[in-house]
Amino acid sequence: MSLQSFKITILGNGAASPTLERPPSAQVVELRGRFFLIDCGEGTQLQLRKYKFSIQKIDHILITHLHGDHYLGLLGLLQSMHLLGRKNPIQIYAHEPLKSIIDLQNKISESYLNFEINYIFLSNNGLSLIFEDELLEVYAFPLKHRIACNGFLFKEKPLLRTIDKSLLDNYDIDVSEIHKLKKGLDVFDRHGNTIAYETVTHQSRPHKTYAICTDTIFDKTLTTYISGVDAIYHEATFLDALKDRAKKTYHSTASQAAELSVLAHTKKLILGHFSARYKNLTFFLEEASSIFPETYLATEGEVYNI
Amino acid sequence: MSLQSFKITILGNGAASPTLERPPSAQVVELRGRFFLIDCGEGTQLQLRKYKFSIQKIDHILITHLHGDHYLGLLGLLQSMHLLGRKNPIQIYAHEPLKSIIDLQNKISESYLNFEINYIFLSNNGLSLIFEDELLEVYAFPLKHRIACNGFLFKEKPLLRTIDKSLLDNYDIDVSEIHKLKKGLDVFDRHGNTIAYETVTHQSRPHKTYAICTDTIFDKTLTTYISGVDAIYHEATFLDALKDRAKKTYHSTASQAAELSVLAHTKKLILGHFSARYKNLTFFLEEASSIFPETYLATEGEVYNI
Repeated sequence: MSLQSFKITILGNGAASPTLERPPSAQVVELRGRFFLIDCGEGTQLQLRKYKFSIQKIDHILITHLHGDHYLGLLGLLQSMHLLGRKNPIQIYAHEPLKSIIDLQNKISESYLNFEINYIFLSNNGLSLIFEDELLEVYAFPLKHRIACNGFLFKEKPLLRTIDKSLLDNYDIDVSEIHKLKKGLDVFDRHGNTIAYETVTHQSRPHKTYAICTDTIFDKTLTTYISGVDAIYHEATFLDALKDRAKKTYHSTASQAAELSVLAHTKKLILGHFSARYKNLTFFLEEASSIFPETYLATEGEVYNI
Repeated sequence: MSLQSFKITILGNGAASPTLERPPSAQVVELRGRFFLIDCGEGTQLQLRKYKFSIQKIDHILITHLHGDHYLGLLGLLQSMHLLGRKNPIQIYAHEPLKSIIDLQNKISESYLNFEINYIFLSNNGLSLIFEDELLEVYAFPLKHRIACNGFLFKEKPLLRTIDKSLLDNYDIDVSEIHKLKKGLDVFDRHGNTIAYETVTHQSRPHKTYAICTDTIFDKTLTTYISGVDAIYHEATFLDALKDRAKKTYHSTASQAAELSVLAHTKKLILGHFSARYKNLTFFLEEASSIFPETYLATEGEVYNI
């Protein structure tokens, strides 16, 4: 894990009916040591193992909506966290009925979890801040799907400057001043000389933003929430030839995801949530990249830097 | 599929905390074209695909008990059956609270299934016939576990004799007489001559029995239900060194499964439901086969003839 990393790993890129090549929805958003699991389709706990994530490092699970292919792996994951000794609480961001699903099953199986679940229930009222710490803010925003559904926006905060230790060693600066330098403030050394922050620090990479839009009908109003993001994951259940079916089932096509990326001035588009009917995904890439060139296919196990 | 086949395929041999090498409990019992799925841990629908079973051919799903590692894959499987066009009803044999789990989740996700589920609720009152047709009888019987739990007994009916077409061609026998010959009855040909059934038929293989005991504490009274079966699948969550833990958690050890097989005069023992703590399963085989030589390890994807 790099101290500057902001990347996502796709654990599942399939839609409602998973296949061996396309497990159901799940992805890990990793920001400098924070691990967020977005959606948790059936089998996600084994996908996490397959791609070498420690399940105990995941402290936040965000569920976009309560269709089975987005949450049926959650209870198994929680139970494995328990069996493997978890004590730390976990935050689950989801629609309220999820709690009754988890509670009913734990009651019937006479199971308990040896750690706390803190539920943060999602609403459909515009952009709402659901998490914040010194590194980032996470927002939820409403998507138009058949049932209540939310997208998520990860907004990294500006990164502190990076200390160059080899340059710092030339100066007699008290350790308590380091944080000021990282924040871009000049300091005094122990002899009263001013040390300009540029002399011992480097600028870090720009802070980034990442949005997830799954599942959703093609909805231009989403630009309100995701305008200018560095990367967007957008569902593309169908190719454009089935755009009527997409509309009817509140899903999108590859072209529509690309069109939204153009309208929202995003820098990168990752397409996912592909219907099992398509064997060859290159058509998705061709269709979308003809409209928005910086398009990538969500591939199981693939890592995408934001 | 052989017309005389009676075999099981292990889809998952793991216990509560699955690993990549050991998916949670699931197995297919296949008897001459009938497919029974026993338990349906998380990911079973993909295991069925992996081992080339048509999910629509499964008409009976038996769930031993409502711990997550035995049923969390059920809803996903049912929803895939629906999405792939199933119309035929399915029989689910399980403890009654399972219905509330399925119903709640379908209600919340505003999903419906385009086929009927016929629930057959399991009781803990001795041996009870839960299914019968011209090929076999299936019984449930109680196991001692932390929550209500049942074992299953598959009793094949005596097989009809096999017609030898090359021999039959020597006689002028009306087609309506064939079934009598198969049942071991002599018939008349069209000219009034008696044809002994042995002259045109062969004896089929003996009819077989198969019992499944998972999850259960070591329980000698199970011999009441499984005495003399051809094969038994018995859980062996632990090695004998952890028999105190086995007792406390209402599980069994490899030695105990073997001891029960000796007491019940079974012909074959298949051990499964191995705790994730054991990396090497050969110790299970050594421990059990020193007591009961005809012991096999349940291995993912392996087929066992009864």
